[in-house]
Amino acid sequence: MNAPHTFRKPLPQAFIDTLTERFGTRFSTSEGVRAHHGHDESHFPDALPDAVVFAHSTEDVVAIVEACREHAVPIIPFGVGSSLEGHILAIHGGICIDFSEMNRVLAINTEDMDVLVQPGVTRKQLNAELHGTGLFFPIDPGADASIGGMAATRASGTNAVRYGTMRENVLGMTAVMADGRVIRTGSRARKSSAGYDLTHLLVGSEGTLAITTELTVRLHPLPEAVSAATCAFPDIVSAVNTVIQTIQLGVPVARIELVDALTVQAINRYSKTTLHESPMLFFEFHGSPASVEEQAQTVQEIANDNGGLAFDWASRPEDRTRLWAARHDVYFASLNLRPGSRGVTTDVCVPISKLAECIAGTRDDIEASGFIAPIVGHVGDGNFHTIILVDPADEVEIARAEALNNKIVQRALALGGTCTGEHGIGIGKQAFLLEEHGSAAIDAMRMVKQALDPDNLLNPGKILPPA
Amino acid sequence: MNAPHTFRKPLPQAFIDTLTERFGTRFSTSEGVRAHHGHDESHFPDALPDAVVFAHSTEDVVAIVEACREHAVPIIPFGVGSSLEGHILAIHGGICIDFSEMNRVLAINTEDMDVLVQPGVTRKQLNAELHGTGLFFPIDPGADASIGGMAATRASGTNAVRYGTMRENVLGMTAVMADGRVIRTGSRARKSSAGYDLTHLLVGSEGTLAITTELTVRLHPLPEAVSAATCAFPDIVSAVNTVIQTIQLGVPVARIELVDALTVQAINRYSKTTLHESPMLFFEFHGSPASVEEQAQTVQEIANDNGGLAFDWASRPEDRTRLWAARHDVYFASLNLRPGSRGVTTDVCVPISKLAECIAGTRDDIEASGFIAPIVGHVGDGNFHTIILVDPADEVEIARAEALNNKIVQRALALGGTCTGEHGIGIGKQAFLLEEHGSAAIDAMRMVKQALDPDNLLNPGKILPPA
Repeated sequence: MNAPHTFRKPLPQAFIDTLTERFGTRFSTSEGVRAHHGHDESHFPDALPDAVVFAHSTEDVVAIVEACREHAVPIIPFGVGSSLEGHILAIHGGICIDFSEMNRVLAINTEDMDVLVQPGVTRKQLNAELHGTGLFFPIDPGADASIGGMAATRASGTNAVRYGTMRENVLGMTAVMADGRVIRTGSRARKSSAGYDLTHLLVGSEGTLAITTELTVRLHPLPEAVSAATCAFPDIVSAVNTVIQTIQLGVPVARIELVDALTVQAINRYSKTTLHESPMLFFEFHGSPASVEEQAQTVQEIANDNGGLAFDWASRPEDRTRLWAARHDVYFASLNLRPGSRGVTTDVCVPISKLAECIAGTRDDIEASGFIAPIVGHVGDGNFHTIILVDPADEVEIARAEALNNKIVQRALALGGTCTGEHGIGIGKQAFLLEEHGSAAIDAMRMVKQALDPDNLLNPGKILPPA
Repeated sequence: MNAPHTFRKPLPQAFIDTLTERFGTRFSTSEGVRAHHGHDESHFPDALPDAVVFAHSTEDVVAIVEACREHAVPIIPFGVGSSLEGHILAIHGGICIDFSEMNRVLAINTEDMDVLVQPGVTRKQLNAELHGTGLFFPIDPGADASIGGMAATRASGTNAVRYGTMRENVLGMTAVMADGRVIRTGSRARKSSAGYDLTHLLVGSEGTLAITTELTVRLHPLPEAVSAATCAFPDIVSAVNTVIQTIQLGVPVARIELVDALTVQAINRYSKTTLHESPMLFFEFHGSPASVEEQAQTVQEIANDNGGLAFDWASRPEDRTRLWAARHDVYFASLNLRPGSRGVTTDVCVPISKLAECIAGTRDDIEASGFIAPIVGHVGDGNFHTIILVDPADEVEIARAEALNNKIVQRALALGGTCTGEHGIGIGKQAFLLEEHGSAAIDAMRMVKQALDPDNLLNPGKILPPA
């Protein structure tokens, strides 16, 4: 973690005057508004911006960027504040652009299965607005995050094994560059070989290369048939082996999620469910009725070979909704295992063949550490989290949690994996980024950052480790 | 098209000495070797490099780049020379790095369904080496291109509708930067949020940002069942409407290819087939036996509703092989329609809802032009080609063909599409790139190029239009 609150200068009065004149009450330097924008879901200390502005349009963002350029004020884009690595912390001060009021769905193209949205649209809002079109947007991180924020962190969730992540689902963007110019990247065509892939350069760039003001994202047809089930296993490795064999066989599962026994306990308490308190897989199958039945049959056989109990089916839509709501609430359910705690959330992702070794090793590390730390994961992608519950006021404990995270990351990297499957780098994983990619690749990233944001105004201090 | 052969300087003797010393007979300035590397499959005039070197390793490439930096010599990576927009033409002179002898498959990871290859491995070679693993590499441009070249142009082919393009299938790369440093991008993990997406930045960059020396690409399980069929239609729009409805219904077809009546004639003559000489779709279905049957049933119903004749099934593997070989040979079959001709190949891609309008308009333009120009396409992606047959010695005719291409591109852009679905920009489509993305986005691309290759040594004159 970088030293927070460095290089902070008071906002120039001329800057305040310019923004007040243009934005009126949409521009605020009040303590309460700043405090609301000074923390995310991570355990890092609050770092308040000096001001917050609520953008309504691309032109608004251009005006903000121009003022910030003139007065050398850092800019931090803000969706709903659900990031997990300190992405939106104003560690160098500056102005936070809140996109929550820039949240219109601009065009639903049902025939081409894509949609044009403003960055403040949240994933649940989008799916609500898609109701009746026969289409849905599959990316579902734990929080009801904004589409802009999800693109910024290259987010995924429980459906990624079948439908991909934000990397695969963002088709194009409108973005404001650090020089105040507006670019349009990508195309509504499903493929293109036209020049450098600026869309993929911006996806995952955490607001450090440009500020996204519109996004075109893919939609997918609602499956004709859906079935969901849970399956309990005698131990976690049997569950993981079921996953590995399912993926290697090419079964097109829509969801295949692991929860360990501790997580099931947390879920049962928090969501009032009565799940069997052992390591468990949550499945969902999408397709035609025949295909769904075929997939379910195949996976049941694999699970059975690995010692799994009988599948427990959630047949009615409302049962499925309850099941997946419980799964999505795991983070908050876990925090309840230790009242007053915050989570230090790990996020490694490894090649599927290494998943059992990685999870078993992680479990041993957790046991040795003495922490309460449930394991939960999007295991079809090779991605899993441990939520290490810490007392946020106890620095020694946080340091121990970070040491445990370090151990987990080192194992994942040694197994050919990544330090973050879906949460991003923020301020929390910069040292790991360097380890994972090496100094030459990080220097290449620095060159790109320097080229596109020479004055380091866009979310400074995020992603790239100090040189 | 840029003025070729500009800024060409003779190679410095010290440079020749350095490379001769290190590479011996693998370095050549002979006319014959240079001539072999001075043209691709486009209609653009030959532009020979000043020398050719056959690389065997990443270290070789580093040594070449260092010598080129010292002596300001341009560098052009070369796979098999099958590019279609002049990508490998040495329009500013310089040295061509031939990767044909750097063609080893380094590691097949069957459990994780990925493979590490050197850039000179061709797609057919890779699939031959995968024989017996139960896996295959699906990307199949018309030529037996190299994996390195396919990554450079973001290639796709007939399977992209189901399996994606190089964009979706390259997991990581080793590449030599213009400063001689070696970077490793990406990860064998199936997803990652770790920093800027250098992999996607390099895929499609046509050798202008770095020189790829190793690639990790995804593999896919060989489907349990495969079936293929052709279906003739009374007119091209009925065929295209069948495609649109199939895609919009979410049927996971593996291949859905359009050939117009003229193309079928060309195929019948060249490949000694007896296909019905009318607009036609070629289908392939992959999956479990039940799923394949279900897909075929659904698509047959859609085709029938659109006036399609009965499906003609290629049931035996050898029949399927013959069918797809005939499809892959369309470019050469088309050239035979006008002996001595070369093709000016268009490559637009539009949102699927606009495909019928785009193809019908294109057909009218061709008729008005008087050119022989078959239409063929990866229509499931919204992508199609016209192969405009020209006399390569007739400049007036080439200009007319380019005017026709221009018309086709303008329509595609107006419909929300791209000027190139899979062939890339090279020297042929730079003006279209600017029109498609606008000057601000092109300037952003220039900034990236300037940052990563400040001396403009890497394939200069490609992709970016003159400033």
